[in-house]
Amino acid sequence: MRSLAILDSTLREGEQFSGAFFHLEQRLQIARLLDAIGVTYIEVPSPIASPETHEAVQALCALNLRTQIVAHVRCAERDVEAALATPVAGLNLFYGTSTELRSYSHGRRIDQIIADAVPLIKRVREAGRYVRFSAEDAFRSDLVDLLTVFDAVIEAGVQRIGLPDTVGIATPRQVERLVHLCAERYPQIGIEFHGHNDTGCAIANTVAALEAGADCLDVTVLGIGERNGIASLSGLIAQLYIHYPELIASYDLEKLASLDQYVAESLNLTIPFNIPITAPGAFTHRAGVHTKAVLQNPRAYEVLNPSDFGLARHIDVGSRFTGRYAVG
Amino acid sequence: MRSLAILDSTLREGEQFSGAFFHLEQRLQIARLLDAIGVTYIEVPSPIASPETHEAVQALCALNLRTQIVAHVRCAERDVEAALATPVAGLNLFYGTSTELRSYSHGRRIDQIIADAVPLIKRVREAGRYVRFSAEDAFRSDLVDLLTVFDAVIEAGVQRIGLPDTVGIATPRQVERLVHLCAERYPQIGIEFHGHNDTGCAIANTVAALEAGADCLDVTVLGIGERNGIASLSGLIAQLYIHYPELIASYDLEKLASLDQYVAESLNLTIPFNIPITAPGAFTHRAGVHTKAVLQNPRAYEVLNPSDFGLARHIDVGSRFTGRYAVG
Ligand SMILES: O=C(O)CCC(=O)C(=O)O
Ligand SMILES: O=C(O)CCC(=O)C(=O)O
Ligand SMILES: [Cu+2]
Ligand SMILES: [Cu+2]
Repeated sequence: MRSLAILDSTLREGEQFSGAFFHLEQRLQIARLLDAIGVTYIEVPSPIASPETHEAVQALCALNLRTQIVAHVRCAERDVEAALATPVAGLNLFYGTSTELRSYSHGRRIDQIIADAVPLIKRVREAGRYVRFSAEDAFRSDLVDLLTVFDAVIEAGVQRIGLPDTVGIATPRQVERLVHLCAERYPQIGIEFHGHNDTGCAIANTVAALEAGADCLDVTVLGIGERNGIASLSGLIAQLYIHYPELIASYDLEKLASLDQYVAESLNLTIPFNIPITAPGAFTHRAGVHTKAVLQNPRAYEVLNPSDFGLARHIDVGSRFTGRYAVG
Repeated sequence: MRSLAILDSTLREGEQFSGAFFHLEQRLQIARLLDAIGVTYIEVPSPIASPETHEAVQALCALNLRTQIVAHVRCAERDVEAALATPVAGLNLFYGTSTELRSYSHGRRIDQIIADAVPLIKRVREAGRYVRFSAEDAFRSDLVDLLTVFDAVIEAGVQRIGLPDTVGIATPRQVERLVHLCAERYPQIGIEFHGHNDTGCAIANTVAALEAGADCLDVTVLGIGERNGIASLSGLIAQLYIHYPELIASYDLEKLASLDQYVAESLNLTIPFNIPITAPGAFTHRAGVHTKAVLQNPRAYEVLNPSDFGLARHIDVGSRFTGRYAVG
């Protein structure tokens, strides 16, 4: 059976969400719940970011979870060394490869990116850690630039490459094409996808990546992250539950609602109504034709069974929509 | 140039959202804003639902908007007559065609569905109104059943058929296939798509329908609707702005934020962070590498220009993420 790694980046991408800040105990609790659910990786910020981040990374590693802790680290020597000085299982390196990021972010040419990344990748491999290299803004990068960089980092020993849709511009079809192309060119390594939601397609793009050959998918709890965030864990789970249940057979789905609730409370949010599975109204039926049918058989208007998630359906029979003439 | 109709169903699907209820003046204001933005259709509930609905439909028609008011009506004679007794521009008929809905909702066979629908469609056409027929739960319907019904209602004179993903189970690829098949089989009529968000793909599915030949796309403000709702107007606009700007060339995009804000306030909600364009943080940049680049050129991390929507970007320079060692 094919296997799929889910990477949760709530503690890295998620903390880039405007207004997000977790205290140490909240970070640990989020990690424990993610571990209990069964995600493969938890991504944390670069330990060099601040003494407080360093301490959090150490504490997270000390939990000794099944879930592997990986640090999101720039291709800079001191950043890599700082991460290697902690017991993280691996390093997720990244470097912007699009013209936009090369011009306005770091100002480096493709050959310079390779010259920066290659020795660091070798260093991480020699240290016996997992290493992934991600081409930030992959979907606005020139294909030759992108593949030139990937050829070099794979040659240097990365175990996985990352294709992030950093600005949320990709369509499912574009994701499918680029992931497929990379999966054919690099059959020996893993492929990770990370999709932003600026145009509302983060979950669809993430599933398109899976179908095209990605073996690691990035999410955050509720989908929090820069700007409109990225794919949500609940959204991805809803997709997998319906279309690829075998890939989450070992997951404890009953913990999902407590995790989403915990993060929402930590951020002083309510779970947005559009989040699959865990939103307050996800299993609420209101229109007359809906409630009538659902009372006979919930499958009439439900494709996810709330009890598989430890949740209950709610039939809004008191509403004005369920009167004699109610229409749906 | 190809043309696209956007149908906003905030006042029908949206009011099926758990907890949603709009007062008459709110309904009128929502309609005025939708009209100012430039959507083609506003869908309203069946006037027979209640005296209050009837009054609202009359008041909405009396606004004399450019946007056409269409009523969402069951295939039942008195429902159709009640709608025809109001000045709505058209009727959106619907009937469940999946085994699930035929068994647990209305209990009618395919031939009975046709026998019910055909005379009503003829009646609406004779009355000189627009008529659409939608196969509720199209994506769980047997293809032969679905096409048998569509063949008959098209023969009877419908101007558009509707393909709703009623339970939010479809993938972009499935939507593409079914819409494409119908577009080839029925080149003479329009095709409408309506996508629920139970598995998080409503917007991607809606765009897939457009690309496969649909000429009318359903949305609601913020995406409110039964359970997790449907595609949001802002999400669809974000997609069209990037991939098909010519289709919304006549839209007044600067009104979008006030509409989303107005509906959120009417429902006592804040706009969820994951809504494209109008979410509070949609143009907020936080991580150090992001803010640094965006200060040089916003295109580094932005694919929608906030000023096209009358909005401003926010650069979170005060946050702990923008320190000297900040990493993104
Ligand atoms: O390292 C990655 O793959 C993702 C970085 C990131 O957050 C992004 O590009 O949006
Ligand atoms: O009439 C339609 O096309 C849509 C009805 C509806 O809300 C649905 O099937 O989800
Ligand atoms: Cu990101
Ligand atoms: Cu609907």
